[in-house]
Amino acid sequence: MLSVDDILAASKVPFSNAEFNKSIAARGVPSSDLICLPPSAGWFGPNEEGKRVVKVLCYSKESTPNFYMRPIEGLVMTVDLDTLEVLKFSDTGREIPIPKSTDTDYRYTAQTKEPQMEPLNPISIEQPKGPSFRVEDGHIVKWANWVFHLKADHRAGLVISRVMVRDSENGELRDVMYKGFASEFFVPYMDLDESWYFKSYMDAGEYGLGMSALPLVPLNDCPRHSYYMDGIFATPDGNPFVQPNMICLFERYAGDISWRHSEGLLTDFQIREARPKVTLVARMAASVGNYDYIFDWEFQTDGLINVKVGLSGMLMVKGSPYHQAPNQDAMSGPLISENLIGVVHDHFVTFHLDMDIDGANNSFVNVNLVKERSLPGESPRKSYLKAKRKIAKTEKDAQIKLKLYDPSEFHMINPSKRSRLGNPTGYKIVPGGTAASLLDHDDPPQLRSAFTNNQIWVTPYNRSEQWAGGLLTYQSRGDDTLAVWSERDHSIENKDIVLWYTLGFHHIPCQEDFPVMPTVTSGFELKPVNFFESNPILRAAPAFETDLPVCRSSASS
Amino acid sequence: MLSVDDILAASKVPFSNAEFNKSIAARGVPSSDLICLPPSAGWFGPNEEGKRVVKVLCYSKESTPNFYMRPIEGLVMTVDLDTLEVLKFSDTGREIPIPKSTDTDYRYTAQTKEPQMEPLNPISIEQPKGPSFRVEDGHIVKWANWVFHLKADHRAGLVISRVMVRDSENGELRDVMYKGFASEFFVPYMDLDESWYFKSYMDAGEYGLGMSALPLVPLNDCPRHSYYMDGIFATPDGNPFVQPNMICLFERYAGDISWRHSEGLLTDFQIREARPKVTLVARMAASVGNYDYIFDWEFQTDGLINVKVGLSGMLMVKGSPYHQAPNQDAMSGPLISENLIGVVHDHFVTFHLDMDIDGANNSFVNVNLVKERSLPGESPRKSYLKAKRKIAKTEKDAQIKLKLYDPSEFHMINPSKRSRLGNPTGYKIVPGGTAASLLDHDDPPQLRSAFTNNQIWVTPYNRSEQWAGGLLTYQSRGDDTLAVWSERDHSIENKDIVLWYTLGFHHIPCQEDFPVMPTVTSGFELKPVNFFESNPILRAAPAFETDLPVCRSSASS
Repeated sequence: MLSVDDILAASKVPFSNAEFNKSIAARGVPSSDLICLPPSAGWFGPNEEGKRVVKVLCYSKESTPNFYMRPIEGLVMTVDLDTLEVLKFSDTGREIPIPKSTDTDYRYTAQTKEPQMEPLNPISIEQPKGPSFRVEDGHIVKWANWVFHLKADHRAGLVISRVMVRDSENGELRDVMYKGFASEFFVPYMDLDESWYFKSYMDAGEYGLGMSALPLVPLNDCPRHSYYMDGIFATPDGNPFVQPNMICLFERYAGDISWRHSEGLLTDFQIREARPKVTLVARMAASVGNYDYIFDWEFQTDGLINVKVGLSGMLMVKGSPYHQAPNQDAMSGPLISENLIGVVHDHFVTFHLDMDIDGANNSFVNVNLVKERSLPGESPRKSYLKAKRKIAKTEKDAQIKLKLYDPSEFHMINPSKRSRLGNPTGYKIVPGGTAASLLDHDDPPQLRSAFTNNQIWVTPYNRSEQWAGGLLTYQSRGDDTLAVWSERDHSIENKDIVLWYTLGFHHIPCQEDFPVMPTVTSGFELKPVNFFESNPILRAAPAFETDLPVCRSSASS
Repeated sequence: MLSVDDILAASKVPFSNAEFNKSIAARGVPSSDLICLPPSAGWFGPNEEGKRVVKVLCYSKESTPNFYMRPIEGLVMTVDLDTLEVLKFSDTGREIPIPKSTDTDYRYTAQTKEPQMEPLNPISIEQPKGPSFRVEDGHIVKWANWVFHLKADHRAGLVISRVMVRDSENGELRDVMYKGFASEFFVPYMDLDESWYFKSYMDAGEYGLGMSALPLVPLNDCPRHSYYMDGIFATPDGNPFVQPNMICLFERYAGDISWRHSEGLLTDFQIREARPKVTLVARMAASVGNYDYIFDWEFQTDGLINVKVGLSGMLMVKGSPYHQAPNQDAMSGPLISENLIGVVHDHFVTFHLDMDIDGANNSFVNVNLVKERSLPGESPRKSYLKAKRKIAKTEKDAQIKLKLYDPSEFHMINPSKRSRLGNPTGYKIVPGGTAASLLDHDDPPQLRSAFTNNQIWVTPYNRSEQWAGGLLTYQSRGDDTLAVWSERDHSIENKDIVLWYTLGFHHIPCQEDFPVMPTVTSGFELKPVNFFESNPILRAAPAFETDLPVCRSSASS
């Protein structure tokens, strides 16, 4: 992984390089305006040397802290991370102007124009008796019917482990998940230029999501009454390093309904039953250079775990000679501001989900919905769906591409533990909106990130298989990925198995993404299926007016 | 559409039917324990008579208001709605016991056991200065940068119209959508039995979503500080009828982040910027017999409209001789309680979205992401994605099935209105997790609901084409659906056009759905794309501690 020392050293290299200084002078940029960043170099085939290399690109920070919007286009160096030698210097694009700094500053204190909307009155999630969770021994979270361990990790960012939920009948704590975390990212950009082709980041293994996390901003990143947890890591020289307020934990009430039913229009029963949905969220945000990734693990009292990834921060943009949108087929993305192209790219996040449903030995079941045709004369109906359960015997049975027209549910079950009715206890993974990688399997970035070849994989637990792109990701060659492991085709039936899910986004930028992007969110759910004997929140209490707080405007009012 | 009078009359028919009373007596059910409901009959081919018919099924309400969980299985009547004559009487399944009433009552006052979880402290969304929206003339909602008309409709439930958003540069109100609403439902069950095959509900056109809505429950269906709006309809005899508190409107703060960026790990800038996300939600809930459908239209200050459908309430279940789960291939769904099968079914909701991006004349653009292969020697990269824009000329160009491996963005643009950069102003529809109908096109329910043959359609505006299943849905034959209209293949380029989107759910029930289902939600987004010149919420203010309320536990503390 790139260390902070690697990054700081590499980003200084250009300033002492004669060729670079000459080019910068020719472009009319004072070196005091420059800021340089080291994107990972990737790996592009067997002819590459056995050196540890990084690319270095520069931006102008003149008049703005949002230098990301001011690329020095086409100027890219390949730097040896050990010797800090410039191995390759590429200088194209001198005719491309540096995009203007106007309207790029996103800081609140820098705003001079009024927002064109009516101001909003203050709003807050309030719990005057305090939150309902406890954190024991610094890491064990207890809330409602849940107990789990929460920690900051320098690579995965946030790790949830030993997740247990209380049985709704007898109150016993039952295993749900041994460990869950974001194992790897893959962020390929769709531009072949010399200064762009290599951009195919694997943010967890190359930079570290935890190493990239900065302190959360109270009231704005997390609501009032949040609990904050520090990250404790090691610096490259082995000293301890504390990242304060790296994780927040809060109870969430969003005005949603946990369950409801009304009766009375057609029957004599006059029933109005509804339950508000209150959840617990563990959150961290990684600022991996330009992009900000927000991770939420949300726990519901009905046993559902909702995992969300939000994308915000800055686009990685490309300088362009154009002021006006030309025929867009000529460009690798839309013009989003004068002289600025938002290059098309993807984001994939692969989660390691070591489910332990009622214990370690589990099976993976594909519950396939198949269209059947009725027999002649059997029914006025001609077709219907049938749910067909198939237990995956080996890893290849669980290499799954999602299909809208060949749908399945994907269950992790404990074949040895059955409900009162005889159904195996289980959880299912429920994908939300997502995207698949379309790159060719022989394309080097896709080879290194072959864990995105499917949306779902299941492997037997192996303590050395935590990172979907391999333990040593930086300049990896794709020989130690989840895709390679899965090809062994080991048995996964009634074993300690790990579920891998990849969430994806295609991002075709637009003007609204300039100069900072409104958050885009997607996710997936882990949902109990015949795990509880019945609805575990049937007996939940409604909210009563008398329990709610009495508030006044503010301390000063 | 079935009227309340139709429904009440049909549900009384069994009680005066000798054959029915004989069967009930043989089953040992006192008629005072019965409650009967009239599911729509559908239409199953040209040999059906030209009568207005309904099916009638009964349940036992003995010891529980949740009679839905106690079907009198196999007993079904076909009733003439005009003469109230029983046209057909089918009586199978006498050997199937009526499932027990134990643990079916979902009312809070009926709960005797303790929930097996630690109680939660009160939590509330608080706004001591009150909400920031205004409702003028009873229907015009003004909030932040949005203005729209909100009304209750007896068929569609909730209608949003004349939606305008304020330009972030000059503050002018700009058109976004002329009208949006849930146009039709399709809920086919996957069981061929005589008492099940016809269950293929079109809830909007057969029952009416507004007619099925009951008053929302304050604090539980909608948060504190919500504004409530009545529905005013006509009864079958033409008298006015007021459904109080049918819609709620509230500001939502869920602890989410509108945008963020932190800087400081690798550069000298020490920046921590984040903005809390506050939205406005308009909600209604329809209780169409057993099922509850929750509709949310959520407006964000960044111009995004998030439309969500939540499903709760009761399953439509089938009596079964089994106490223990047998080989499930023998059944039309899983055993979810003793003698109770949760029959597999789908839910589709088709939205009518008459977008007016900066005026009525719009075009529909398919922005297709295509994988391209690099030329030999062109780049170390072998493949990349290219966004290819194609404007739909006619309706057939816009008949779209979503594909994970052939992805597109779907834009509604105004070809005559361009941004400063020359991009056409637009909105895109962003599908969330969804499901497609897999039934054969010649199956009568699918023919009647052929509007679910694609996920997206675009038609020229036609005032008589509001309802995707046809104006006269009850016993319709599929000759007046969106699928039929679209086959005309009219021009849709630079015209007043309507976007139709179908959201779907496959539902394989599980034990957790008994006796009332935790809410399952999905939705889609309408998102600005080059509509604003730049991020419209760049200048939004963060939250400050001094603005937030001071609260104490409760009035009594």
